[in-house]
Amino acid sequence: MLEFNRPLALQDKANDVLTVGELLVDLISETYGEDHEASSYRKYFGGSPANIAMNVRKLGARSQLAAAVGADGLGRFLLGHLQAAGIEPAFVETVQEATSLVVLTKSRSTPVPIFYRRADYRLSYRPALEEIAKQSRFLHFSCWPLSMNPSRTTVERLIELAQAHGVRIGFDPNYHPMLWSEEEDGVEYVKTIIGRSDIVKPSDDDAERLFGKDVPDKQLRKFLDLGAKLVILTLGKDGALASNGAETIRFPTLADEVSDTTGAGDAFWSGFYAALAQGSTLKDAISLGLAVSAYKLKFTGAVVDLPDLSSIRTQYGL
Amino acid sequence: MLEFNRPLALQDKANDVLTVGELLVDLISETYGEDHEASSYRKYFGGSPANIAMNVRKLGARSQLAAAVGADGLGRFLLGHLQAAGIEPAFVETVQEATSLVVLTKSRSTPVPIFYRRADYRLSYRPALEEIAKQSRFLHFSCWPLSMNPSRTTVERLIELAQAHGVRIGFDPNYHPMLWSEEEDGVEYVKTIIGRSDIVKPSDDDAERLFGKDVPDKQLRKFLDLGAKLVILTLGKDGALASNGAETIRFPTLADEVSDTTGAGDAFWSGFYAALAQGSTLKDAISLGLAVSAYKLKFTGAVVDLPDLSSIRTQYGL
Repeated sequence: MLEFNRPLALQDKANDVLTVGELLVDLISETYGEDHEASSYRKYFGGSPANIAMNVRKLGARSQLAAAVGADGLGRFLLGHLQAAGIEPAFVETVQEATSLVVLTKSRSTPVPIFYRRADYRLSYRPALEEIAKQSRFLHFSCWPLSMNPSRTTVERLIELAQAHGVRIGFDPNYHPMLWSEEEDGVEYVKTIIGRSDIVKPSDDDAERLFGKDVPDKQLRKFLDLGAKLVILTLGKDGALASNGAETIRFPTLADEVSDTTGAGDAFWSGFYAALAQGSTLKDAISLGLAVSAYKLKFTGAVVDLPDLSSIRTQYGL
Repeated sequence: MLEFNRPLALQDKANDVLTVGELLVDLISETYGEDHEASSYRKYFGGSPANIAMNVRKLGARSQLAAAVGADGLGRFLLGHLQAAGIEPAFVETVQEATSLVVLTKSRSTPVPIFYRRADYRLSYRPALEEIAKQSRFLHFSCWPLSMNPSRTTVERLIELAQAHGVRIGFDPNYHPMLWSEEEDGVEYVKTIIGRSDIVKPSDDDAERLFGKDVPDKQLRKFLDLGAKLVILTLGKDGALASNGAETIRFPTLADEVSDTTGAGDAFWSGFYAALAQGSTLKDAISLGLAVSAYKLKFTGAVVDLPDLSSIRTQYGL
């Protein structure tokens, strides 16, 4: 059992977090407007595992990113951005497909992203990736690489490898039907991966998409019943609820100012991993995840200029 | 044989030109720059057959467009644009795929477009499409719908239908390896379609991609040998060379001012079809194609506000 008041038992490894999955360009409209109006879009570095890899490093821990981009201008833009953030993209493959893209027109109602997935799911399993995965303390991924092949097979092999080499598995069960082919039951598949994970961090929306509407305590139980060792259910302004199966703890939000919620979940994961890597207890790491998330919420954009973890501790009295 | 000094024998039909193929969004960077810099992109209505359908109508002839868009904001933007131009999109299918997109970062060297093809090639063969194809004088398409399925099958069936119902076939052999799957020899396939076409209008670049480098007269001959009845080889500032197999005529360019070459080929087709629909001789129609192209070259953008054909005649002394 993963105990809240102890540091997570982690092996001594050359890397803290290996994030695997989508590295892509977000094209976001500069103005709000009805979707049929001509408008301008701005290009942003994007992809949740890419954001987490960059955040973890800013917080003072070690990270690597495994992803695939196209041999095109948008791919070069992403690689340049990683390098500028100090991540040598040694595990980012360049493939003969366009760099994946998400187009989002901001709207006062519900903005609906349009996905153009091309290079991201072409991530292949290679010796260099196997090596860095073995040498990492955490393997992290979301539903994106699982939703298509060959990246699904790559992640499945990395999961086996992680289990054999004492690498902890963190899974963001951000299931969305738009990511999946209509021919497959994505929910059933995601449930099998939840069962193979050490830590899962669903939002209340993720939980509802997977299990339907229910009260938070019951949602937590469903993830645990599938086999996850630690479940952190985030509840927006209501903070988070975490359970290891034996004990459930409620964490209040630390956010006092909300400018933009984009990337708040990535910020949580980043603070959580960085704290665990530094030897924090599970409970302390969850608080630090919430603190980094609260810090990020004050600024606009998915990736903000985070200070290191000790500065976050001071600011949030942790 | 298609004689230069005679009008093209056309049946009396309810529509002049049916263009079939890509209707998509062009996202073009607002500034020039190296491709790795963050920049803004502007959304434009795009797709060559869509531009031709709009141009033909502005010039005073009748047109319809068969295409497929996604059930998303970009698709609704395109449909709204067509309706604003007076084209009721009765033959534009909405499919369960994202609207196709082309991203282009302007560059002082060679700008390389990135293609995100999704909805455009999902164009299916339906009774309504069969009906409008039979009722049209010209069927027009480029290499885009031929490069993938199911749109390839749709165009192949429309070609058979056209041949059986006295519909003239105009084909833009704009072959580019980026459009084709690596598993297929696109050049060989495009050659079979050239052989089934009444009129083909390659640029010198198109001819080189299909046949390798050669002098214009020899390139013309290669298209004729494949079975095209009329070949119009456009040569940029050197005008065009047209041959019906028996006779070859050189046409000087009519352009006196070049602001932007985007859409110049579409403008040619539009003037050419509109003139033929009004009973012009082939030779006169080619001159009008060049005149509409020259008019378009004065302005920036793929689709410009064209006057009607008689005004073009007056301006260019035709």
